[in-house]
Amino acid sequence: MGGVTTTSSELYPVARLAEVREATIRAGLGALLLTPGPDLRYVTGYDALPLERLTCLAVPAAGEPFLMVPRLELPAAEHSQAARLGIEFVAWDETDDPYEEVARRLGAVGRVGLADRMWAMQSLRFRAVMPEAEQVLAGSALRELRMRKTPAERAALAEAGAAIDAVHTLVPSLLKAGRTEREAGRDIAEAIIDAGHTRVDFVIVGSGPNGASPHHELSDRVIQSGEPVVVDIGGTMPSGYCSDSTRVYCIGEPPAEFAAYYEVLRSAQEAACAHVRPGVTCESVDAAAREVIAEAGFGDRFIHRTGHGIGLETHEEPYIVSGNTEPMEPGFAFSVEPGIYLPGKHGARIEDILVCGETAGERMNNTTRALVVV
Amino acid sequence: MGGVTTTSSELYPVARLAEVREATIRAGLGALLLTPGPDLRYVTGYDALPLERLTCLAVPAAGEPFLMVPRLELPAAEHSQAARLGIEFVAWDETDDPYEEVARRLGAVGRVGLADRMWAMQSLRFRAVMPEAEQVLAGSALRELRMRKTPAERAALAEAGAAIDAVHTLVPSLLKAGRTEREAGRDIAEAIIDAGHTRVDFVIVGSGPNGASPHHELSDRVIQSGEPVVVDIGGTMPSGYCSDSTRVYCIGEPPAEFAAYYEVLRSAQEAACAHVRPGVTCESVDAAAREVIAEAGFGDRFIHRTGHGIGLETHEEPYIVSGNTEPMEPGFAFSVEPGIYLPGKHGARIEDILVCGETAGERMNNTTRALVVV
Repeated sequence: MGGVTTTSSELYPVARLAEVREATIRAGLGALLLTPGPDLRYVTGYDALPLERLTCLAVPAAGEPFLMVPRLELPAAEHSQAARLGIEFVAWDETDDPYEEVARRLGAVGRVGLADRMWAMQSLRFRAVMPEAEQVLAGSALRELRMRKTPAERAALAEAGAAIDAVHTLVPSLLKAGRTEREAGRDIAEAIIDAGHTRVDFVIVGSGPNGASPHHELSDRVIQSGEPVVVDIGGTMPSGYCSDSTRVYCIGEPPAEFAAYYEVLRSAQEAACAHVRPGVTCESVDAAAREVIAEAGFGDRFIHRTGHGIGLETHEEPYIVSGNTEPMEPGFAFSVEPGIYLPGKHGARIEDILVCGETAGERMNNTTRALVVV
Repeated sequence: MGGVTTTSSELYPVARLAEVREATIRAGLGALLLTPGPDLRYVTGYDALPLERLTCLAVPAAGEPFLMVPRLELPAAEHSQAARLGIEFVAWDETDDPYEEVARRLGAVGRVGLADRMWAMQSLRFRAVMPEAEQVLAGSALRELRMRKTPAERAALAEAGAAIDAVHTLVPSLLKAGRTEREAGRDIAEAIIDAGHTRVDFVIVGSGPNGASPHHELSDRVIQSGEPVVVDIGGTMPSGYCSDSTRVYCIGEPPAEFAAYYEVLRSAQEAACAHVRPGVTCESVDAAAREVIAEAGFGDRFIHRTGHGIGLETHEEPYIVSGNTEPMEPGFAFSVEPGIYLPGKHGARIEDILVCGETAGERMNNTTRALVVV
């Protein structure tokens, strides 16, 4: 499949914990509290299950990091990547209060950064036991690190891109007039796993008018001859990194109106990709796609932002959207996915993942962006 | 598969929204804010994707409920169960601030209940735009409803139970000396989908010493002849309701020491199940299992609570644990899953889902609880 298999120790280097502590200090935080999810995995490599029992990495600005872990998760934690870090694992028992223990160990903290996806059932408990600490997002410290992908992370995204490209190569054999979106979608989901993903994150098969709803998933609608079909698919690789790519297929020759705006879309996507380089703002990449579409008279048919960052989450910073004046840097990874949607008729979207390199963007997806006539 | 297929309108009745508003008032809350997840699905039937763009049902104690929804999710929302409720859908555009809009519409609120799994990236935004509102968990209002399963919910749990029982019936054909846990686990995951689940939630195959770690998942360890194997599996059905059942298999005849404590465990699980009826406390069900195990001298080998509630989440209230003095009521649904673990050697756990009926508990899992020699 062309990708480079990245090992966990390169993807999740032990040295990252020290970098994270420095970022915590720079962000003016007294500590980070990371429950299971992408923030915890980024820092430790530990893909812990999100459960009601508290698992939480505490990274104090001063003092030693530690991992609170339910006693019955201790063997799993000890076999995880987190064991390489040489930090204390604090096991708690069923009738202990692990929140109190975290607060006791941290002492007085001015501002505490919570994992961006920490559940309210946990953040409110932390508020109760640390009433003086101002809660902010851990992202305020971690974003500068997570947005700038390392060479190992870029390799992991390339591997994910090659895997989803392999699925798109199979899609023409799975789309047929007379099949339902759901039937095709089931086969595509299986192909996503067969291509090396550990999890199917989403399968959008939008046939005919359903293609005009960007986040339509699957329905029992029967795919008809002569219809364009938007196929937007993604999954998570064993590395933890995500894939996401959209292509448009047509069951036989496309309607003339569709064929015309599809070429506009293709130019727009190309223009946005060509615009990517260090120093340009995120919103300028959005504008590059939007201008082409607006000039062709479809400005009001492009109803979403041009893209989202991607890494350990399918959607993460940076967002490629009007108002985001952050300048691109090498290592930024994101989707470029303009769309044109004609409600009641059909729609189209073309999506690649790009990584910003030293001088230009590099595409992680490389199947044809031409309309594929099935 | 023996289950009753429950339709969405029975499982997610339109009348529930009014019940939820009453519960909100009883709990002393000014509003509920429910982002995608089990709380939102319980109230509306809408299985919305958890994304960084805000989707949120607001249920004010006074005033009309409304659903904030990103414009590009609007077609999905309009095709979802939430459309039956007749409430306003407020679509927001990419450059709007939906949090401000929710705050503006709600006005002054004393206490606001957040979905138990609301992400910090959302709860902190709500705190910023509603600084005077005290944030508490929506569970404080919803728990009394969600814990008492309706007849349709019980039917959905029975259907989930029958589906996972069908998988356990296949397990003996998938466990063989010489296969790795991961190989067996992959086949079991496929069987979970084939049995009617839409999602595999977890697959634990703990062979030999790995059986002594309750939350061990899968490893590349090769299953050996003469070893007990703990298989704890579950998934989510199209209804949204979850399955969860554990059985123990042995590859050939078990070690004598294991066979002896397995019978203790079986008696303990039976005793706890027999103890279930309205009025007994949750902790007394835990004690019923624990006493049998302690009397046999394995008290310190049973290192977790006896069970957890189950419904739209695999783990939810009520927890069957020491300290939970809540009395059982008809409709409570939960696992009874004592275990005995000998680190370095092997372990065992037997788990059924029970629903408390009018006079006794009813098991949702009905495969044999005897040790299955493969």
